[in-house]
Amino acid sequence: MRDLNSIGRIGIGDHGAVTRLVFSIKELRSRQLLIHLMRQAGLKIHIDAIGNIFGRFEGSDSRAPAVLAGSHLDTVIHGGKYDGPVGVIGALEAVRTIGENKIPVRAPLEVVCFVGEESSRFGFSTLGSSLIAGEVHPKDLKNAVDPQGTKLADVLSSLGITQKQLRALRRDPKSLKAYLELHIEQGPILEAKGKRIGLVTSIAAPSRFKVIFKGQADHSGTTPMEMRKDALVASAQLIEYVEKVCRKYSTLDRGRVVGTVGAMKIEPGVINAVPGRAELSVDIRSTSAKSKDRVARMVKVQARAIAHKRTIAVEVLKIREENPVPLDKRLLRVTREICDGKGIDYEIMPSGAGHDAMQMAKITLAGMIFVPSKRGISHNPEEWTHPDDIALGSQLLMETMIRVANEKL
Amino acid sequence: MRDLNSIGRIGIGDHGAVTRLVFSIKELRSRQLLIHLMRQAGLKIHIDAIGNIFGRFEGSDSRAPAVLAGSHLDTVIHGGKYDGPVGVIGALEAVRTIGENKIPVRAPLEVVCFVGEESSRFGFSTLGSSLIAGEVHPKDLKNAVDPQGTKLADVLSSLGITQKQLRALRRDPKSLKAYLELHIEQGPILEAKGKRIGLVTSIAAPSRFKVIFKGQADHSGTTPMEMRKDALVASAQLIEYVEKVCRKYSTLDRGRVVGTVGAMKIEPGVINAVPGRAELSVDIRSTSAKSKDRVARMVKVQARAIAHKRTIAVEVLKIREENPVPLDKRLLRVTREICDGKGIDYEIMPSGAGHDAMQMAKITLAGMIFVPSKRGISHNPEEWTHPDDIALGSQLLMETMIRVANEKL
Repeated sequence: MRDLNSIGRIGIGDHGAVTRLVFSIKELRSRQLLIHLMRQAGLKIHIDAIGNIFGRFEGSDSRAPAVLAGSHLDTVIHGGKYDGPVGVIGALEAVRTIGENKIPVRAPLEVVCFVGEESSRFGFSTLGSSLIAGEVHPKDLKNAVDPQGTKLADVLSSLGITQKQLRALRRDPKSLKAYLELHIEQGPILEAKGKRIGLVTSIAAPSRFKVIFKGQADHSGTTPMEMRKDALVASAQLIEYVEKVCRKYSTLDRGRVVGTVGAMKIEPGVINAVPGRAELSVDIRSTSAKSKDRVARMVKVQARAIAHKRTIAVEVLKIREENPVPLDKRLLRVTREICDGKGIDYEIMPSGAGHDAMQMAKITLAGMIFVPSKRGISHNPEEWTHPDDIALGSQLLMETMIRVANEKL
Repeated sequence: MRDLNSIGRIGIGDHGAVTRLVFSIKELRSRQLLIHLMRQAGLKIHIDAIGNIFGRFEGSDSRAPAVLAGSHLDTVIHGGKYDGPVGVIGALEAVRTIGENKIPVRAPLEVVCFVGEESSRFGFSTLGSSLIAGEVHPKDLKNAVDPQGTKLADVLSSLGITQKQLRALRRDPKSLKAYLELHIEQGPILEAKGKRIGLVTSIAAPSRFKVIFKGQADHSGTTPMEMRKDALVASAQLIEYVEKVCRKYSTLDRGRVVGTVGAMKIEPGVINAVPGRAELSVDIRSTSAKSKDRVARMVKVQARAIAHKRTIAVEVLKIREENPVPLDKRLLRVTREICDGKGIDYEIMPSGAGHDAMQMAKITLAGMIFVPSKRGISHNPEEWTHPDDIALGSQLLMETMIRVANEKL
């Protein structure tokens, strides 16, 4: 908790809101603090070209594939201090406890901090783990621009990171035995069911795209209603439609679809002009790839229908297209056995949010442990998890790491 | 045209868009250029505390009340080069022509440039002329904040302008004989009717207010649709309602109501969070005070109904409440007589846009002359008026100034 709070103080503002956007000064400071903590713990540190941090603890067989555990330290704008850091500090504490108690492990353990898990700055999530998994193609980064107009590609090149280096970041699957991630649930289910641990079966993945309506900016006083080409009213219709169609597909059997318009930009954006241009970011998620794709398609069709009816133009730009990712059943069995052995009441559940684990699942066995979020609130300064639950989750993470490092799965 | 183009080059950007927001460096530069042009023309310059500029040309009776003519030099974001400058440079050219041709005038003539006619920066329009008319109460300025979070009140005090000075800006009506303003129509009517001159009977005035929906920011992946308190979807419903109700009241007999949501801010405003807060700027105008007030009231009632249904909070903040302003019939008669005498085909019409003339009408006789806007476009880089029409409008302005300065109205 002390280390978690130290990280949480970096980027803290009004009402306890934490903002550490990827590649910001605050986010870089949090990475440096982690490196310091890892060094104090005696871990061997490796930092790759994009900035992913690996703190390695050697087991008895240094040539065995490693067991990784971690998460991320970057946050959304005005977020909380648990989303990400719980998994990084939880893994660090697990490895420290193993070291201090001289618990024998065969495989090396690595505490990992991935760069840019949150999409808040560039609309591009799990940046660091995607690169480790060899999932990012340089052209995928092309449309990524932050709200200040800074391109992700330019940030990378200003940090001296070349496309060649990006492609070389992919980690050899042979060097990995498993990836484990402790994370807050960020949803209301564990609290509602009175459980302290969630064991994750799969991760719902987002389809993300931008919709840009292009109408005509006009004077708000002199342009009669019937002569307007208002891009904001078109957007309003689409925003309502996203809610409507997602509500229709929100039941478990229809794939628990959720859809959000979270970011929006209008131009000229002044009180006395009819908006001529509006840009919306749409995020559609589901545990069913089929439902997600169907709803995303319906939203795109509706965007075109709205534009057609209003005789304005519309453009749809793909940001990211992910499929739901199943996590590894053997790791799930190990965590279940540990819980059952200790009498911990757990919930087997999917994850509505995306995580670095969904990238790591592409190159190794991946598993996730959830701890409850108070009132399900996340991406918000009110995000909170009970310290006892964080401790329990870290304990479970540690015991899973030990068994995975020592056993044949 | 040369002077108009010189002004238009200040703040010019991509695609010829002109941005000179009030109190910005560009806007201050345009004022300085005007002072230079006035000085070259031999006018006596007076600049008041807020920055309104008066260039005086003495007639035969320096103690007679003055005939003022002018407009403004500030612009919207990405606007054109005609809205405002045509009236300032038109008045300057009129006075220069009178001087060069030694046309006798009895009353003094003053070319005026008002500060901050556009509301684009602070959501507060006709700032300079309101102060001259003694219409602004310091508390009216309280809610005025620009999109960067800078308060108008702070900008004023950083320029050393005190509340006491603001109150003292009011000009003695006895020092004024009339105010005349040449302006582009900013609407499609003159072009549609093939007329080159519009004579303005009254100015439609806006009711402006902010609606702030306060829901709950949540994670976009883990928050089920039915548990959300999405402030953006609430806003979308209101935006659609504004269009719907204004269309119903858009006929001439129902007061030609127009309503616009032109500016919008959402928080946290990122792709992966449900918007917890949304702030909309609503602008309702009509030539009928009754229709405008009724529609504004309906929109506010609807905002509360939407918030109630979604169990979120809502707040309505008044920005400005103006009533439609009739212009002076005697000035209209003078301009009609001049047009009739010269065979100029004109349109008698109301103004949908607000102008400094509506403030000046409170302390003196006020009249306006319109010239056509191509395709009715304004507040847009494509804003355009034919140079011949600008010349004709300036000519008419000059002849009106001469008659008003010399005759008893």
